[in-house]
Amino acid sequence: MSKKSKRAVVLLSGGLDSSTLAYYVKDIGYDLYTITFDYGQRSRRELNSAEEIGRILGVKEHKFIKINLREIGGSALTDELEVPKGREEMPATEDPQIPITYVPARNTIFLSISLAYAEVVGADAIFYGANCLDYSGYPDCRPEYIDAFREVARLGTKRGVEGSPIRIETPFLFYDKSQIVKKALELNVPIEKTWSCYEDGEEPCGKCESCLLRKKGIESVFLERAKRSLK
Amino acid sequence: MSKKSKRAVVLLSGGLDSSTLAYYVKDIGYDLYTITFDYGQRSRRELNSAEEIGRILGVKEHKFIKINLREIGGSALTDELEVPKGREEMPATEDPQIPITYVPARNTIFLSISLAYAEVVGADAIFYGANCLDYSGYPDCRPEYIDAFREVARLGTKRGVEGSPIRIETPFLFYDKSQIVKKALELNVPIEKTWSCYEDGEEPCGKCESCLLRKKGIESVFLERAKRSLK
Repeated sequence: MSKKSKRAVVLLSGGLDSSTLAYYVKDIGYDLYTITFDYGQRSRRELNSAEEIGRILGVKEHKFIKINLREIGGSALTDELEVPKGREEMPATEDPQIPITYVPARNTIFLSISLAYAEVVGADAIFYGANCLDYSGYPDCRPEYIDAFREVARLGTKRGVEGSPIRIETPFLFYDKSQIVKKALELNVPIEKTWSCYEDGEEPCGKCESCLLRKKGIESVFLERAKRSLK
Repeated sequence: MSKKSKRAVVLLSGGLDSSTLAYYVKDIGYDLYTITFDYGQRSRRELNSAEEIGRILGVKEHKFIKINLREIGGSALTDELEVPKGREEMPATEDPQIPITYVPARNTIFLSISLAYAEVVGADAIFYGANCLDYSGYPDCRPEYIDAFREVARLGTKRGVEGSPIRIETPFLFYDKSQIVKKALELNVPIEKTWSCYEDGEEPCGKCESCLLRKKGIESVFLERAKRSLK
């Protein structure tokens, strides 16, 4: 007799974090329902990466949702503003703590649509690759924000009213990039197929915040390993 | 010297409730930024109504956002399921308290996108025409849900972090339909230009839950007035 499968919706952008997350969720025994947002981001390459990662993972279903946040604007990732090269080049804004690459309410929009999808496919949980260390400037990556969204998921859905709310899981919330890289290597994630760069193009720009974080994470892991092997 | 105008985002579906809400928000002195969702609903007429109401009101900006919830499904309003005629005809579901016209996480999705819009235009508040009496079966019309979303708005945005969170206002939360009709008459809302029907067509079907509620609300107000005038 087959046990009823566990189902999870995974927010998969095609970047390193969410790709590793999808591998992790599969590894712990869930059937995967991946969801990817085409929100008018500069980086079109990450959509291809998401599609490819989903295919390699053999997901049950991969939903691509088009929602044009360019129409709303307000971010360097969707507007015609220039993406800054590294944190030190971030232009001064009213609030220097919040990067210009912050997209207003983006994660709330993504989680909301994922919530609808999870309810329709009967998923037990939504997995979301937020991490609050490297992205400490983004309000919607913080633990208290995730908790608030859990309440919305519990109170705003049929599933919640019926007493089995959809769980919001963020296993990488306190991981830094090097821990995510280690997890990716452990799970044999094809890192070279993921796309983290905020820009589009044949190759990652190597200079934006996301490229720098990724590079630093990968370097630190390999440096550590090199040191260990020299002992 | 001109005082800085107050700005409000108003969720305007084109129905009676949200149209009355938009009139109300203008009446209390806000500049209006209306937002209407084309989510693949059966009723295409309500989009025209929304557009017309916005035009009559002279809104500062009217944002139409396309997001195809049909791709996700799970509701009689977006799927190929039949819209039930009145509450008594609602088919038995797993949870008889929740109508088949419930769209999974719809209001959370709408509020999230409105939150992004409010942040970009610098609005003080989002006005949302939820009412929990006539729509008691919808989890995402309940006061506790609205409170949960307020926390998300506070914690998940730049504005919240900066200490001036975008307010979520639901002035009709405890109104029943006849109170909304009274408010509409008081504010000279062109009721005949609003569209509440869940179906599309030249004329409202007159039989769906939304038509019945509207009819009941309007009748009760006029009946009351007729009685008073006979005294």
